[in-house]
Amino acid sequence: MRLSRSFGKTLRQAPADAETASHKYLTRAGFVQQVAAGIYSYLPLGWRSLTKISNIIREEMNRTGAQEVSMPVVQPRELWEQSGRADTFQPPLATLTDRRGRKMIIAPTHEETTTLMVAANLESYRDLPFNLYQIQTKFRDEARPRAGLLRVREFEMKDAYSFDKDEEGLDVSFREMADAYRRIFSRVGIDVRMVEADSGPIGGKDSNEFVLLADSGEDTIFVCSDENCGYAANAEKAEFKKPAAEPEEPRELEEVHTPGIKTIEALAEFVGVPVSKTVKAVFYTPETPSETSAGGEIVFVSIRGDLEVNETKLRNSMGGAELRFATPEEVAAAGIVAGSASAIGLDDENGPRSRARITSIADDSLVDSPNLVAGANRTDYHLKNGNYGRDFSADVVADIAMARAGDACPNDCNGHLVEHRGVEVGHIFKLGTRYSESMGATFIDEDGSEKLAIMGCYGIGIGRLLAATVEANHDDKGMILPRAIAPYEVYLARLNTNDETVVTAADKFYDELVSAGVEVLFDDRDEPPGVKFNDADLIGLPLRVVVSARGLRNGEIELKRRDSDEITMAPLSEGVQAVKVALEG
Amino acid sequence: MRLSRSFGKTLRQAPADAETASHKYLTRAGFVQQVAAGIYSYLPLGWRSLTKISNIIREEMNRTGAQEVSMPVVQPRELWEQSGRADTFQPPLATLTDRRGRKMIIAPTHEETTTLMVAANLESYRDLPFNLYQIQTKFRDEARPRAGLLRVREFEMKDAYSFDKDEEGLDVSFREMADAYRRIFSRVGIDVRMVEADSGPIGGKDSNEFVLLADSGEDTIFVCSDENCGYAANAEKAEFKKPAAEPEEPRELEEVHTPGIKTIEALAEFVGVPVSKTVKAVFYTPETPSETSAGGEIVFVSIRGDLEVNETKLRNSMGGAELRFATPEEVAAAGIVAGSASAIGLDDENGPRSRARITSIADDSLVDSPNLVAGANRTDYHLKNGNYGRDFSADVVADIAMARAGDACPNDCNGHLVEHRGVEVGHIFKLGTRYSESMGATFIDEDGSEKLAIMGCYGIGIGRLLAATVEANHDDKGMILPRAIAPYEVYLARLNTNDETVVTAADKFYDELVSAGVEVLFDDRDEPPGVKFNDADLIGLPLRVVVSARGLRNGEIELKRRDSDEITMAPLSEGVQAVKVALEG
Repeated sequence: MRLSRSFGKTLRQAPADAETASHKYLTRAGFVQQVAAGIYSYLPLGWRSLTKISNIIREEMNRTGAQEVSMPVVQPRELWEQSGRADTFQPPLATLTDRRGRKMIIAPTHEETTTLMVAANLESYRDLPFNLYQIQTKFRDEARPRAGLLRVREFEMKDAYSFDKDEEGLDVSFREMADAYRRIFSRVGIDVRMVEADSGPIGGKDSNEFVLLADSGEDTIFVCSDENCGYAANAEKAEFKKPAAEPEEPRELEEVHTPGIKTIEALAEFVGVPVSKTVKAVFYTPETPSETSAGGEIVFVSIRGDLEVNETKLRNSMGGAELRFATPEEVAAAGIVAGSASAIGLDDENGPRSRARITSIADDSLVDSPNLVAGANRTDYHLKNGNYGRDFSADVVADIAMARAGDACPNDCNGHLVEHRGVEVGHIFKLGTRYSESMGATFIDEDGSEKLAIMGCYGIGIGRLLAATVEANHDDKGMILPRAIAPYEVYLARLNTNDETVVTAADKFYDELVSAGVEVLFDDRDEPPGVKFNDADLIGLPLRVVVSARGLRNGEIELKRRDSDEITMAPLSEGVQAVKVALEG
Repeated sequence: MRLSRSFGKTLRQAPADAETASHKYLTRAGFVQQVAAGIYSYLPLGWRSLTKISNIIREEMNRTGAQEVSMPVVQPRELWEQSGRADTFQPPLATLTDRRGRKMIIAPTHEETTTLMVAANLESYRDLPFNLYQIQTKFRDEARPRAGLLRVREFEMKDAYSFDKDEEGLDVSFREMADAYRRIFSRVGIDVRMVEADSGPIGGKDSNEFVLLADSGEDTIFVCSDENCGYAANAEKAEFKKPAAEPEEPRELEEVHTPGIKTIEALAEFVGVPVSKTVKAVFYTPETPSETSAGGEIVFVSIRGDLEVNETKLRNSMGGAELRFATPEEVAAAGIVAGSASAIGLDDENGPRSRARITSIADDSLVDSPNLVAGANRTDYHLKNGNYGRDFSADVVADIAMARAGDACPNDCNGHLVEHRGVEVGHIFKLGTRYSESMGATFIDEDGSEKLAIMGCYGIGIGRLLAATVEANHDDKGMILPRAIAPYEVYLARLNTNDETVVTAADKFYDELVSAGVEVLFDDRDEPPGVKFNDADLIGLPLRVVVSARGLRNGEIELKRRDSDEITMAPLSEGVQAVKVALEG
């Protein structure tokens, strides 16, 4: 492709709101252009990269035997009512009313549609297993789209859905998809880690994320320091061994005057115990109040002073309810003494439960931690020697603590958790029967009984994968694109455009490269060398080749890989071969 | 692909509302499944066909130098306000409000988005010409989606947009696209006619439709009987030479009592003139009343009695306003005497114009037709010898008549119009500056002046092309798919599935065909021959090959092309070669 004919211009300036490298460079290099917040057009260079990613994914999906289908963008909202997600999906479904007065949504994912299609075509266990996938446009009305292609509203996604006759089958399908994902990311040329993850609004029992390690990534993952262990999970999901409390005999509850003590650290110091011997209370309230309480509902969370609340775990312990911090007014209205609150006395006459609907949740570490210091539910007073079971209890006891770097690995190894930053580029879920039940995807098993199909689902955001790759592969001049997904392999720059010898030689060499099957972006513009070199670095094709008057004096061309500073010369007469060798690296 | 593993089932029954062959067969063969009115999922067989069509289109578009891009489905409604189409596009834009309270639409076409993208990237005449295309999902909220994939709401479309520096450039781009379209339809294997067409809501000066001839098609086209002439147009656009009236001296206006005369034919007979000597009045009213009239607006149409009104031409003569028939009440309220109305006396004191806002339109044939019989605007009376100019006139005189089979060709030939039915599968438009002006796509020309880019746009509905192909290629057993777009080339049926010799031979032959690069759908199911033959006919792959016990006794397989009744036998040992020869036809 001649750059003079290629639609799109490189820009000197990135958009004012561009903070991440991928947002800056993909915009400046003319790969994408914003149409609205979180909504982009792909220009020819960007679309070529996206197509290459799609083709790699398609090949690897086909290799597993998965079958390509295509499902609609616009769907009846009824389908989502049938699955029970119409009002709970996050972000909220983009909804419109069509000309016939029917509520339609723009699909953020396709579990409902796939399962309905399967329900109409599945008869016997002999039809199973199968896996259906599509590469298709989705829309999620994110409240705060940002970072270019990393957090968008409209996006291209490969989504696959597996159907099996039993859990063992699902395990096989899930493993096959995990293997396909590893091959896909390896072929794209990026270093991706599979980690345990929370299932979020998609639901199901197990899920794994694929995270591209990049310092600028917005996701945190924890990996065990013991390589033989292999434990890896994202921050939302990560478990850890909580430091055990020293066993002690329960002592008697004792009130302490703690004037002006506002923090857990100050409290521990004042009382003379480690923070792990204190209990912290945190208050949430449901985003959507339940029908039985007209607001005023409090989630009363107790956790050891040395730990922090993991809100994903907390939400899961509550069956998935969306929570927010309670306001000081809501806390006071429930009769809770902020700063000196604890679950001790929650059920007292005139206690908080007499005034408000309260669900109490305790981190499981509290159960085995004796003689804790907790709030006395009276301003400027605390209690020593609080013991779970004797002095307080909770409606739910669960692991709701946030892992941190250095925490002990949850597995039986001696490792600790090491923190990395990264970008999620894929997510796979074991769904089980959540959708086959609601949408009626059943089959007749070998024994003649009717059973629910067991599902898995598997996603890769295509544009996000491109952006993540740029996050992990760039320098201060531009992108450094892996060969497999670069829009072209070679940036051929013709210098001295008024020198006919150079023009003729460069044109001829361009034709030779194209004939040899090399994908070339030929900078034939009438621009100074500096502009061409800057654009070559910005666009980040794997290899830059220069045809100049100076080089031609020795019959040579200049080659430079984008990922290296080394410049080599090669005879023009052997140029095609030299380019092929240089591309192989 | 083994049919036992291919997702999707053939159905005995078509949906109750399926009237067209393509709707019946694409559904019954498991190519598509309806999700909502006019919204479909593509199952693996259907998606393979669609992908083949897309690939043919992509190759031919690339061959012209067009560059592939991708623009979003969801867009700010503001863009459409900028172009002036937000409230006028038909069908009305599907609109939703996003979480930030901004009005968004689901795009039915992409002139606005493309032109905005170009506005940001076009600088100089040296950047021109170029052509940008995409294969992408669109949504049009049709009031009455029907006929399966022929009239849907959500669809895949190839849309291309050319940008030139002048009208001559546009003519070249337009011709290149017309040529590319001819190559595309020829490669798909269908007989498509290019005809003149109306531009409709896309706008612009010229447009051509590509129509696949099929008796079941919903579109009417007229083609000149003189092959050397080549005139072809759709019914909305078709022109014709109107039979000229005999020249006569104007005679004096004369009132005639015409009791009980209700039709033009009766009137002509009663007065003793041919119907071509009468004037017919027809009344419309704008769908959206203009601001200056609070309703009560009448479009008073006069046309010769031997002609019918073409509503597209009529709308164009009114600048594109949407019209509907006026109700009897609206007609009466304007003081028009239905049954005896004419434009003679429209401006009389107490005449219709004194009561209602009236626009009068006359077909151009009236101007040169002397001594016409027209309504006297008095019940049971008509006037003889009405003459345009002397007795009546119109605000607009234009060709607003509908062509009919047998009418004289508008060109200078001796041909007449022959009527065909067909399905529109492509549409190309010369847009001019309509969008470059509103969206600001300008460039600096060679002389330093700023100019507007000259645009064309070019569409092919991908699913519609598949459906149209089925309309033109089927029999009472199923589809007869052209090889280039059939999901597979060969339907290999293994009979006698309990005979191990047959199973082994068929499996081996299947592997041989696949290794030889033949695309095979292998019916390895445990079903009786009748079921397999019926499915083979329904799915309509080009060639059916049967491996059976009877054939194997002679070491033979059976071959039958779907488009022929002839069955031939070939030695299994030379089976691959025989299949390749049979596929070539």
